[in-house]
Amino acid sequence: MSTTHRPYNFSAGPAVLPEEVLREAAAEMLDWHGSGMGVMEMSHRGKEFIAIHEAAERDLRELLAVPAHFHILFMQGGGLGENAIVPLNLSRGGAVDVVVTGAWSKKSAGEARKYADVAIAASNEADGHTSRPAPSSWQLRRGASYVHLCSNETIHGVEYGELPDLAALGSDAPLVVDCSSHILSRGIDWSRVGLAFAGAQKNIGPAGLTLVFVREDLLDRALPICPSAFEYKTVAAHGSMFNTPPTYGIYIAGLVFQWLKRQGGVAEMSRRADAKAQLLYGALDGSGGFYANKVAPEGRSRMNVPFFLRDESLNDAFLAGAREAGLLQLKGHKSVGGMRASIYNAMPIEGVQALVGYLNEFARRHG
Amino acid sequence: MSTTHRPYNFSAGPAVLPEEVLREAAAEMLDWHGSGMGVMEMSHRGKEFIAIHEAAERDLRELLAVPAHFHILFMQGGGLGENAIVPLNLSRGGAVDVVVTGAWSKKSAGEARKYADVAIAASNEADGHTSRPAPSSWQLRRGASYVHLCSNETIHGVEYGELPDLAALGSDAPLVVDCSSHILSRGIDWSRVGLAFAGAQKNIGPAGLTLVFVREDLLDRALPICPSAFEYKTVAAHGSMFNTPPTYGIYIAGLVFQWLKRQGGVAEMSRRADAKAQLLYGALDGSGGFYANKVAPEGRSRMNVPFFLRDESLNDAFLAGAREAGLLQLKGHKSVGGMRASIYNAMPIEGVQALVGYLNEFARRHG
Repeated sequence: MSTTHRPYNFSAGPAVLPEEVLREAAAEMLDWHGSGMGVMEMSHRGKEFIAIHEAAERDLRELLAVPAHFHILFMQGGGLGENAIVPLNLSRGGAVDVVVTGAWSKKSAGEARKYADVAIAASNEADGHTSRPAPSSWQLRRGASYVHLCSNETIHGVEYGELPDLAALGSDAPLVVDCSSHILSRGIDWSRVGLAFAGAQKNIGPAGLTLVFVREDLLDRALPICPSAFEYKTVAAHGSMFNTPPTYGIYIAGLVFQWLKRQGGVAEMSRRADAKAQLLYGALDGSGGFYANKVAPEGRSRMNVPFFLRDESLNDAFLAGAREAGLLQLKGHKSVGGMRASIYNAMPIEGVQALVGYLNEFARRHG
Repeated sequence: MSTTHRPYNFSAGPAVLPEEVLREAAAEMLDWHGSGMGVMEMSHRGKEFIAIHEAAERDLRELLAVPAHFHILFMQGGGLGENAIVPLNLSRGGAVDVVVTGAWSKKSAGEARKYADVAIAASNEADGHTSRPAPSSWQLRRGASYVHLCSNETIHGVEYGELPDLAALGSDAPLVVDCSSHILSRGIDWSRVGLAFAGAQKNIGPAGLTLVFVREDLLDRALPICPSAFEYKTVAAHGSMFNTPPTYGIYIAGLVFQWLKRQGGVAEMSRRADAKAQLLYGALDGSGGFYANKVAPEGRSRMNVPFFLRDESLNDAFLAGAREAGLLQLKGHKSVGGMRASIYNAMPIEGVQALVGYLNEFARRHG
């Protein structure tokens, strides 16, 4: 076995994939399992692709223990697409309560206003999206069509580990969860969820694939103006094959699901996420203020870690040195500035160790 | 150079890709051009992917001689998605005239009814979608928001080689062309087009990528209910990066565009399409009725060739023998039955020669 490794890629998405998955995909590119075709060349209606599709769905259902009364849909359009597709399917033109904890949920609220009466149930905008509003403080309206929560804010690095129990908060609305950037890094309590969605390009792999988990009883609510290709009921009735699905993305996601199972599944990913996050936040907090993550400790994301140098004039030197050290895509989102390290499932602990080593060394040299 | 070849894959889509493209993609899977990342792992905002994206758009613009006043958009949702996205963007809730020449344009008409006052300008449904209604016979309404034409019907195999001149027919509406299944097999007269779209999974490659060419002056017409991620104006303003684009699909499409340029471009593809189509239709017509393509000769598609055995009890034997001979995915669409050979750009003439050899041999054995 080679001791060399690829550079460590901290992109927030599209993001690093397990090297094993990439090797499998490369090896099968011209001929999948003796079929004489690459996966990209297969009819989605043929037995070869149907086998790939069914295995991916089955493995995902197993990994997240998705109950039988939830449909798993493989769709297109990404998180921004879902910001419209969800209210088109679920709002009935009525009331929608949105919890704003960062850029993504703010966008979700804005887009839903095209179709529904949106109210902000809670917001951390006043503190620059660094706090995590406690569910007990949310203003929830009775009779709302749904409550929208982004359970991990990719840009601002605010995460809800446990999902709220809306019923216990006095709400009768289904919870809609945008879990794009931490899906499969922890379990999901499906008894608290009506619908969950995730763009695949963060913690799974290929951009252009969107996963939707929707409870059976919520399929009948679409507005008549909902495009057929994005109507959950239609997509579910056709087993995600109403229109040609993003076949290669489903294949890659399926390889990732198999890799996750070999690694020990979601419980093991959650243990690793704890270890990686503790290591990285520990280094930032222990830097004597040279670096800072501004998120309130209880709300810190285990996946996306934005941080700032005290002396921002060193930013370019920091990024250039990181690149030299084989640490890629650490620049923060343009709306926030600073740095961001995304440490998804496919990032090994060795990558975080290398990053921490570099953080310490850079601080010593410039502190 | 090896003299072996992969089986010939006649799938209607997702469909065969040039072997050179697959080999490049496999070789670059773990490390694109020394970047230390595979293409699937790159941020869409990074300089590496931006270079890939810009090259793909530039090459496509060159290949199809797309004028500067057309935007090229890389979107998601496929042809069925566009059936809603087009009227959401262009109909203004007004009149839309649709030319029905097969299953795809019929679906387009049905979906547009959600948003617009749809009339059928012409239809070949009465003859089982085998004729090609002459533009001079179309019933076009003055003041229509647009006229929809599917210029190549993948399922029924009816093709318009030349696009109609709507102005000469007395219409002031822009022409919308669904050219999914013959894009890049012939030139497009942009002076006759308002908007063209194509799902990439037929004559380009990866499913989950949709190409949209839209004339600058048509960007301002979207209905307020149009989802932002599918609003052409928004997508154009963000250079197809309003939401994360299907990055790997764009990369593969870009490799296909480079391959097309190396082959001699669209003019050469058109010459090859003529040669391949003549060979295949010649064999069917010369079979003494053993095989039959039912489309009126002037409307026969150069890309999708549906055909029937006179004795349909031989269908299973035909398909089994074809598979044995390395000729894959020849079964016709379930709504039509029989057989279908799709002979896109990536299908070499040798594949059609092999198919014709098999057609002749099978007819000799069973005739």
